[in-house]
Amino acid sequence: MRASFEDVVVSTRVRLARNFADYPFPNRLTDVGQAREIVRLLAAELNHTDTFDVYYMSSVSAEKAAFLKERHLISQDLINNRRISAALVSRDESISVMINEEDHVREQYFLNEFNLKKVYERISGIDDIISESIPFAYDEALGYLTACPTNLGTGLRASVMLFLPGLTRRSVMRKLMPYLTRLGLTVRGAFGEGSGTEGELYQVSNEITLGRSEDEILKVVEDAVRLIAEFELRERQRLMEEDEVAFRDRVCRAYGILTNCVRIDAHEFMLHMADVKLGVASGILNGTMQELNDLIVAMRPANINRLNGAPLGERERDVYRAEYTRKALRAMQ
Amino acid sequence: MRASFEDVVVSTRVRLARNFADYPFPNRLTDVGQAREIVRLLAAELNHTDTFDVYYMSSVSAEKAAFLKERHLISQDLINNRRISAALVSRDESISVMINEEDHVREQYFLNEFNLKKVYERISGIDDIISESIPFAYDEALGYLTACPTNLGTGLRASVMLFLPGLTRRSVMRKLMPYLTRLGLTVRGAFGEGSGTEGELYQVSNEITLGRSEDEILKVVEDAVRLIAEFELRERQRLMEEDEVAFRDRVCRAYGILTNCVRIDAHEFMLHMADVKLGVASGILNGTMQELNDLIVAMRPANINRLNGAPLGERERDVYRAEYTRKALRAMQ
Repeated sequence: MRASFEDVVVSTRVRLARNFADYPFPNRLTDVGQAREIVRLLAAELNHTDTFDVYYMSSVSAEKAAFLKERHLISQDLINNRRISAALVSRDESISVMINEEDHVREQYFLNEFNLKKVYERISGIDDIISESIPFAYDEALGYLTACPTNLGTGLRASVMLFLPGLTRRSVMRKLMPYLTRLGLTVRGAFGEGSGTEGELYQVSNEITLGRSEDEILKVVEDAVRLIAEFELRERQRLMEEDEVAFRDRVCRAYGILTNCVRIDAHEFMLHMADVKLGVASGILNGTMQELNDLIVAMRPANINRLNGAPLGERERDVYRAEYTRKALRAMQ
Repeated sequence: MRASFEDVVVSTRVRLARNFADYPFPNRLTDVGQAREIVRLLAAELNHTDTFDVYYMSSVSAEKAAFLKERHLISQDLINNRRISAALVSRDESISVMINEEDHVREQYFLNEFNLKKVYERISGIDDIISESIPFAYDEALGYLTACPTNLGTGLRASVMLFLPGLTRRSVMRKLMPYLTRLGLTVRGAFGEGSGTEGELYQVSNEITLGRSEDEILKVVEDAVRLIAEFELRERQRLMEEDEVAFRDRVCRAYGILTNCVRIDAHEFMLHMADVKLGVASGILNGTMQELNDLIVAMRPANINRLNGAPLGERERDVYRAEYTRKALRAMQ
């Protein structure tokens, strides 16, 4: 079993919550004209650095909104706030700036690897550009002012998405949780807050934003992720050593089902994909974790509709998912 | 869906029960020398017509006996009677003559298709040869005398092995049973009396041997099989029309598991093989029913040990079964 962070860390994300000193906070921002003004100002500034798509949520279809949300580019709160909200998304999807969500600005930078430093530097660059065009609400004692006190101070949330089949299957994750909570970290399922741990994917992020510097926050998350990843790789090794035939059998059956089934629902797809990822990570199957992680996102409902070019019913989507997955996985072998 | 008897009938078998007038019945045959004399006499006569392997059960290993039993060439009663019992098996396995089982002679002819007439003619030929060398115990009123009264008269048992997934899955088989019983037929699982209906395989045979001529018995079985086969093909059609995607999905998943798994036990193997057979019968998969039926026999425990050249533990046999099946099925595509 090759032991690499790449087999554990799916992606790194840092987001900053900011508000402008001269505008009412979004929950009091009733003037749509004012809301649009913010969007226009930011779009103009950011387009100097990269090419951004501008989505005024009031004119984005439910289908498109679901697509963007599945790709972690926007949040449900942004959709709910559609009267005044918007998103600026860079073409490569690495940068997303949500405007008039809970705060005026939620800037995030996203990277398909484990590199908090790089991600933080990138989003800081964006942050500087924004702050130069519109001054932020900032308090000497409280730091950046936010709508919700849980974001006060740095307004920084560093999240790392982790694939943890070893810790999950060997029931170590539950034991690790209280320890991570004591470090001021939150662990939850990767796809939305209520989605459990589908695909054995977890988000680890800092709970605390106030009273610590950005560097301190990043270091706590970084250290925790390194520790979790080490534990994870050790547990995978044990999983395999415990019963190697059973381990290979499970991986190969998952691959066999995904490359042969005629229809598959999202839940079962995620179950088998976790095994296929484990198979790739352990050298049983060919392919890269990146291809598999991309496939997982591509096979979420709104992403399938997008690929299909038109919305599909649930049954047809299950057939589409099976067909697309079959081709994608076979192409990897 | 192509509609053919070949997709329903696995094999036809006719066996005749006979005893010799001048020897004590097997349950009273204490003289091993006398028992061997019968074997030698029959072997000498039969070897004029074909090449037979002679198995004195007293010197056949348990492993070899299990192998022959799995191939339906000998019975458990023959094994239990090993002190005096023997079997003569033609090289192509179409003819098996069990000696000193319940009766002195149980002659059977086996064919991988549905042709009771041909099978009966073949076994009659063998029967004539045997009766010329040693006269049978025969009574004008009772016909051929047998150890058990259920075989009196013709001593004839015609069995047809049927693959009935349509009738099984659509719960029609249970409704058909009383009707078949009224016709004087017995239906049971294909692999031994206690084995249920593994692989959705059934044996249909005549219960009554007395008071009907051979031709009448064969006709009852023939008509019943034709009727069952018609019903079966109709139910398969319905299974498919009910939900074609579900039908194809089940077939293709079974194929995916059997061509990818690393280990599989006999029970699960039979479950998936039934779906693969249905897939071949309905044109979803390539291959022939004959190849699949042969594979089913080849993957029974003692047959695997035989293929492997040495007995395997259950876990190793499950790995062997997976590997062999993977290659066999892939070669068919």
